[in-house]
Amino acid sequence: MPYLCGMKPSVVKGTRDFGPAQMQKRLFIFDTIRQTFRRFGFQPLETPSMETLQTLTGKYGDEGDQLLFKILNSGDFADKLTEADLAQGSKKLTPKIAEKGLRYDLTVPFARYVVMNRHALPMPFKRYQMQPVWRADRPQKGRYREFYQCDADVVGTDSLLCEAEIILMVHEVFRNLGIQDFTLKVNNRKILAGIAEAIGRPGEESTLAVAIDKLDKIGRDKVIDELRERGFTNANVSALEPLFTSSGTLAEVLATLRTWLADSELAQTGLAELAETLQLADALGLTDSRVELDVTLARGLSYYTGAIFEVKANGVSIGSVSGGGRYDNLTGTFGMPGLSGVGISFGVDRIYDVMDELNLFPASAAQGTQVLLVCFDADGRALALPLLSQLRAANVVAELYPDLAKVKKQLDYANQKQIPYVVLIGSEEVQTGQLSVKNMTTGEQQKLSAQQVVEAMSSVKA
Amino acid sequence: MPYLCGMKPSVVKGTRDFGPAQMQKRLFIFDTIRQTFRRFGFQPLETPSMETLQTLTGKYGDEGDQLLFKILNSGDFADKLTEADLAQGSKKLTPKIAEKGLRYDLTVPFARYVVMNRHALPMPFKRYQMQPVWRADRPQKGRYREFYQCDADVVGTDSLLCEAEIILMVHEVFRNLGIQDFTLKVNNRKILAGIAEAIGRPGEESTLAVAIDKLDKIGRDKVIDELRERGFTNANVSALEPLFTSSGTLAEVLATLRTWLADSELAQTGLAELAETLQLADALGLTDSRVELDVTLARGLSYYTGAIFEVKANGVSIGSVSGGGRYDNLTGTFGMPGLSGVGISFGVDRIYDVMDELNLFPASAAQGTQVLLVCFDADGRALALPLLSQLRAANVVAELYPDLAKVKKQLDYANQKQIPYVVLIGSEEVQTGQLSVKNMTTGEQQKLSAQQVVEAMSSVKA
Repeated sequence: MPYLCGMKPSVVKGTRDFGPAQMQKRLFIFDTIRQTFRRFGFQPLETPSMETLQTLTGKYGDEGDQLLFKILNSGDFADKLTEADLAQGSKKLTPKIAEKGLRYDLTVPFARYVVMNRHALPMPFKRYQMQPVWRADRPQKGRYREFYQCDADVVGTDSLLCEAEIILMVHEVFRNLGIQDFTLKVNNRKILAGIAEAIGRPGEESTLAVAIDKLDKIGRDKVIDELRERGFTNANVSALEPLFTSSGTLAEVLATLRTWLADSELAQTGLAELAETLQLADALGLTDSRVELDVTLARGLSYYTGAIFEVKANGVSIGSVSGGGRYDNLTGTFGMPGLSGVGISFGVDRIYDVMDELNLFPASAAQGTQVLLVCFDADGRALALPLLSQLRAANVVAELYPDLAKVKKQLDYANQKQIPYVVLIGSEEVQTGQLSVKNMTTGEQQKLSAQQVVEAMSSVKA
Repeated sequence: MPYLCGMKPSVVKGTRDFGPAQMQKRLFIFDTIRQTFRRFGFQPLETPSMETLQTLTGKYGDEGDQLLFKILNSGDFADKLTEADLAQGSKKLTPKIAEKGLRYDLTVPFARYVVMNRHALPMPFKRYQMQPVWRADRPQKGRYREFYQCDADVVGTDSLLCEAEIILMVHEVFRNLGIQDFTLKVNNRKILAGIAEAIGRPGEESTLAVAIDKLDKIGRDKVIDELRERGFTNANVSALEPLFTSSGTLAEVLATLRTWLADSELAQTGLAELAETLQLADALGLTDSRVELDVTLARGLSYYTGAIFEVKANGVSIGSVSGGGRYDNLTGTFGMPGLSGVGISFGVDRIYDVMDELNLFPASAAQGTQVLLVCFDADGRALALPLLSQLRAANVVAELYPDLAKVKKQLDYANQKQIPYVVLIGSEEVQTGQLSVKNMTTGEQQKLSAQQVVEAMSSVKA
């Protein structure tokens, strides 16, 4: 390796290193989500980081295609290029020099996997997947080019039990993380479609959704302006009035909607699905429900056909931390139509930001090494070596400072790593066999035998 | 999403999906390695999947540079290209259209991280990292384009305690995995350098290593042929004779080498380091040591300066499953010379192959859902819903078949997912409250109350 003076290394824009302190907290989030997924019978899947561009292209709209990271073909790709290729611009040139791209989400690879393995998979198939995805977005605060998604999906059934279980999983995950104050907004595309029918614009729920999705941000009047711009008439818009006035408990909102949308069969189906889902969640023992019905919730809507979910943490101005819904055509694009499924995705990066801002990480999530053995000399070390192994055998995370350095240097190391306990082993300790255990937070110090040190450290941990 | 008839999806050559059964086993390996790393005080680090080509290029030799996956720049890269660029071929063209590459190993990103954070890191710095790496290799059996590395390194100290701890970690990891029969070969570059001195070719330990590294494969005579081809004289080669004859216990081999290499100060240093490392491992309580000294072990040698490690599982013809060593110039290429470190890397993919071939995965590693609730009708389901949540609250992985399907279909699902227990809830069970619990392996069946089901399932699990 040549020594290159002055080269200052950097990370790629929009990507991040996660050092020990961040990683420990991130692992706490991953573990919490994984445990809940597991307990609900979801099984792990991992797909490759790269997929063929044939698999990826055309699945995320034109903008999505632009945001795919493409991988340059190996070997002599230039040989196959002509001047004419060059003149045609990047878009035409790309397929000639790149056949692979990086995973953009976990849904398309999941769909590909299901299609490729459809004869071997148990149906319904429940899988979870926790892997990074990549998007060639312009980097900005809170938006990264590499980030993790944690998805759980069930495909091969349209049972509303799956929706109910997702509601329970959301409550369990956020409560286990320590995020008690959150809102799980639910909606159903059929209700939205029913509203479009009821106001005289059947089939235009997408246009409607784009506008009313912004109700929170821009308010009623601007939503109406936008709908008018998109060709909605005065009659359409005034028929929408109950949308802006309906409020109250979930049961009251449901009742209002049932009356308002009495003539729309679609809406009644959506409302019935929602009611049954909530009933099932109730039967599953959901307590202190954070579910709210929000008929303006659309989440892009592009492929949702039934339930739509979105979770926000209250008390912070961070966007949604989780979202999902039911879709009926996940695998259609790969030649396997009609497979219904429902899924939920947790955004680890935003969950991290919420927990960081609200100071919700438990002390255990921040902790690395629990005890450092500090030796004054070689005699101390002879005593420390077996103790080190005994501590680890008792599942205590323990370190011995590797060099016979000054005691101050060793204590600095403990402080910098926020190690809560040190065991000091000087000549007196060697003589008496009574070791000095110091609590680095309180400064408290006590004398214990090696055996007692192991007991004390493993009980502190528990 | 358009429905594209006849498009048959596939994975990128050299990459793999890991379905539930494989993932559960892989997670068992990851968790086992992670637990050992943690217990020894290593802290987690994750770096981005992509690095600048400036960071990656020139670190892995010419061949390595060829094997880097490069990412096409976003936007209109073609605009900046001229015909002249095209004529210059792929090698010159690449830097104009690609600035980023995929991680090739975990060592270079670690070095970059250390340099970028050198003022904030506690030293010595102990980190572990478990992430995929990518190589544009020709795919073949057992060689993949995407695979995981699990590395632990300590930098900022040359204490041999680190080497000893690596020896202990290797023993702990493989024993916890259930791979009892393995060999940990150790060597030291200084011994190799000393041999080169002793036979009259000082400084040529690399050439020597390349040849004698193959001793196992090609035998003594061919090694000698190769050395002759590389310019070693008869005198050089016959001086090497003790290498081929030394055998016996570790202590005996050490003694032979001490005598043979008595005149080489370097060799004596290497032998002393090795002896001290083994002594420290012993003091740390290493039992049933699988360490063997192999003076032909070189592992490429390019950047190892002291200890060299390699682990092989016995009884299978699968290459090394772990390897590492000490290096003195990890960060030199990034402008921070003189940082000594030592590390070990575990190859998850090969470990998987070993365990699979030797049938070493514990039953627990294969298990997903433990119990499936099978309802005959809606009344059964009303009883099943709260039970499902009680089971999960007791940390039992439980599922309720989501549809009210035929019982046979539900049992097929249990069999296909290898779920060991089902609870049958028909009309009789609803009436009596006594549920039928069936062991799917033995066919045994017993009647239990809901409460007893929870107790039975959580005790079976433990």
